[in-house]
Amino acid sequence: MPSACSFCRIRDGDVFAHVVLDEPAMLAFLDHRPVFPGHVLLLPRDHVETLMDLPSALDAPLLDASKRIAQAVIDATGAEGTFVASNNRVSQSVPHLHVHVVPRTKGDGLRGFFWPRTKYASEDEAASMAAGIRAALDELAAGWPHTTLR
Amino acid sequence: MPSACSFCRIRDGDVFAHVVLDEPAMLAFLDHRPVFPGHVLLLPRDHVETLMDLPSALDAPLLDASKRIAQAVIDATGAEGTFVASNNRVSQSVPHLHVHVVPRTKGDGLRGFFWPRTKYASEDEAASMAAGIRAALDELAAGWPHTTLR
Repeated sequence: MPSACSFCRIRDGDVFAHVVLDEPAMLAFLDHRPVFPGHVLLLPRDHVETLMDLPSALDAPLLDASKRIAQAVIDATGAEGTFVASNNRVSQSVPHLHVHVVPRTKGDGLRGFFWPRTKYASEDEAASMAAGIRAALDELAAGWPHTTLR
Repeated sequence: MPSACSFCRIRDGDVFAHVVLDEPAMLAFLDHRPVFPGHVLLLPRDHVETLMDLPSALDAPLLDASKRIAQAVIDATGAEGTFVASNNRVSQSVPHLHVHVVPRTKGDGLRGFFWPRTKYASEDEAASMAAGIRAALDELAAGWPHTTLR
C-alpha cells in the first residue's frame, strides 16, 4: 500500500520528482512550485514530522546536505545567496520534515518577507522571555537528544 | 580591539544581549527586533560568514542546538510551531552565520511570506535545472566537507 505521505511516495518511487540528491539518509528534489527556479526541498528519507523530531544521528547528515545543496544551487543558478528554511507545523504543507533551499539574488523581491518586525515593550519583558526560554532548555536537557525515531 | 562583527561583540561580552544558550561551540540570544516575541538567533561562536562556510565539525552542534531551541521556544511561548531559517549573503543583515528560530501560530500573519510561487515553463526546463544542480553537487564532492575554518 503506498504511503499516505507525498514525500514518502516520492522517496518510494511512486510519485515522480526531479531528484538532485539521493543518499542513504537524505533525499532532495526540486520544489515543483518554486519560490525561484532552483528551489530545492531536502528531507530525511525516514519519515519524521518536524525538525524537533529528527533523531540526533541525522543532525550532521541533514546539515551537511543543506550546506552542499546551498552551494550547488548558487553554482547552478548564478544566485548571490540562499535562503535555507524549515517550517515546523505552522505553514508546513507536508508533515514530513523538509528544508527549503532557495536561491536568492539582491532585488529579487523576497527582501520584505521578514518584516514587519515588532519590539519588546521593555527590557524587563525581553529578560522575562529569555528566562522562559532558558528554563525550557533546562527542562529539555534531561530528555535530550533524541537517539531513536519516535 | 573590539571585533567589527556585532555578533562577535555580543559573544565577547562587549555588547549586551538576552542570552538563552551559551555553550562551547554555540551561542543564542533574543533578536532585539523580533518577528514575534521569542524570536531567537543561534550562531556558532567562531566567526563564519554563511552556512556554506560552517566547518563540518559544527554541523551536528548547530543542528542539535536549533532543534532544542525550537522546542524551547514552543514550550516558553505556547506557540504551535516554528520557523527555522538562515539567510546567506542576500537579506543577511550581519555577516556572521545565524539561524533564526521564530515561534509560529496559525493566523499569525506570516503565512504568505513564501508566496507567490512560480513554476517551470516545462518539464524539460525543470529537468535541466535538476541536472545543473546535480552536476554542481558532483563538482563539490571533491572539496567537501570543510574540515577547518577558512
